[in-house]
Amino acid sequence: MNFNYPNGKPYIPKDTAHEINMKNKKNGTYSNRGMTLEEDLNETNEYYRGRKIAIIHKKPTPVQIVQVDYPKRSAAVIKEAYFKQASTTDYNGVYKGKYIDFEAKETQNTTSFPLKNFHQHQIYHMEEVLNHGGICFVILRFTRYEQVYLLEAEHLLVFWERMVNGGRKSITKEEIEQKGHYIPLGFQPRIDYIRIIDTLFYFS
Amino acid sequence: MNFNYPNGKPYIPKDTAHEINMKNKKNGTYSNRGMTLEEDLNETNEYYRGRKIAIIHKKPTPVQIVQVDYPKRSAAVIKEAYFKQASTTDYNGVYKGKYIDFEAKETQNTTSFPLKNFHQHQIYHMEEVLNHGGICFVILRFTRYEQVYLLEAEHLLVFWERMVNGGRKSITKEEIEQKGHYIPLGFQPRIDYIRIIDTLFYFS
Repeated sequence: MNFNYPNGKPYIPKDTAHEINMKNKKNGTYSNRGMTLEEDLNETNEYYRGRKIAIIHKKPTPVQIVQVDYPKRSAAVIKEAYFKQASTTDYNGVYKGKYIDFEAKETQNTTSFPLKNFHQHQIYHMEEVLNHGGICFVILRFTRYEQVYLLEAEHLLVFWERMVNGGRKSITKEEIEQKGHYIPLGFQPRIDYIRIIDTLFYFS
Repeated sequence: MNFNYPNGKPYIPKDTAHEINMKNKKNGTYSNRGMTLEEDLNETNEYYRGRKIAIIHKKPTPVQIVQVDYPKRSAAVIKEAYFKQASTTDYNGVYKGKYIDFEAKETQNTTSFPLKNFHQHQIYHMEEVLNHGGICFVILRFTRYEQVYLLEAEHLLVFWERMVNGGRKSITKEEIEQKGHYIPLGFQPRIDYIRIIDTLFYFS
């Protein structure tokens, strides 16, 4: 399955954006401000791994492979493939024996976070994770303000339900400030979401 | 990064094998005997999900994307990409709040299981998962006998260490019978590994 956004713009997963960004880095245009949420989270997860705090990985981008060439004496080349929609969230792993699962999204909006950043499969998945006792949340970034929030999946599900029942198609910034947890940007780690998890009584 | 096996054979991830197998199914050559370990585990995981027993997913095959075309009014097409080596294991998820992580491999050998089926990155990852209190194991299938075993990562690490120290490059079938847990093939689910996990006192 491959797909476009409703506006006809082709869907391009974050990994590709990441690779383009990495190229810019090599060209010397690297700057902290230009780092994507994904890069910040990858750095954060590396920090957690290095310090033996938690083991969290981003899942590979799902790709539907259509045609593969097998040249003699060299590696297989994928000649035709399409981006697929993910059936789960992008990040998962283990913290103190517990299962951790989250999705990360950013918006250019300044007053609300559009729910179209998530899709129904991911919402189902988050519900399932909660039902099985996992720790599940989303990390939301307002890029204009460089503000990052952790919002527990329980709350996201309520906002999603509101939309499904005909309500607004976004979460207002005020709602995120109320129900979510602000994560101040740091140097190491960049986005210290585990500190928030520690305050949320999962381990009491 | 793309790579060949030491024998010069190109590396082809299981997903591709899976797709080829699915094609055979469509041609009417489907048989239970012909099901790959991956297909059996996917069915098993679907069963667990449907029955609300556990949420376990296979990670997508990691692919290094080199060139993408963006045709007007249609989906992005990946025109050049390579298979990458995975940095973690293939399966993970949540069972009773706990983090579960495993790798599945099969061999045509009849007397031992070659350790070249795993790579150093995966061994590191398993070690890390154990250090963080996750449940980690491998599922090993002797395809000739249609016998499946669950071997806890703790034991795999000992056999790996033995190899690194100059010892044998495989685990003998006797060792797997002794240290591992035989999983009788079922109809639903096909490979009931959660039943073994239940006997291993992780939840006492």
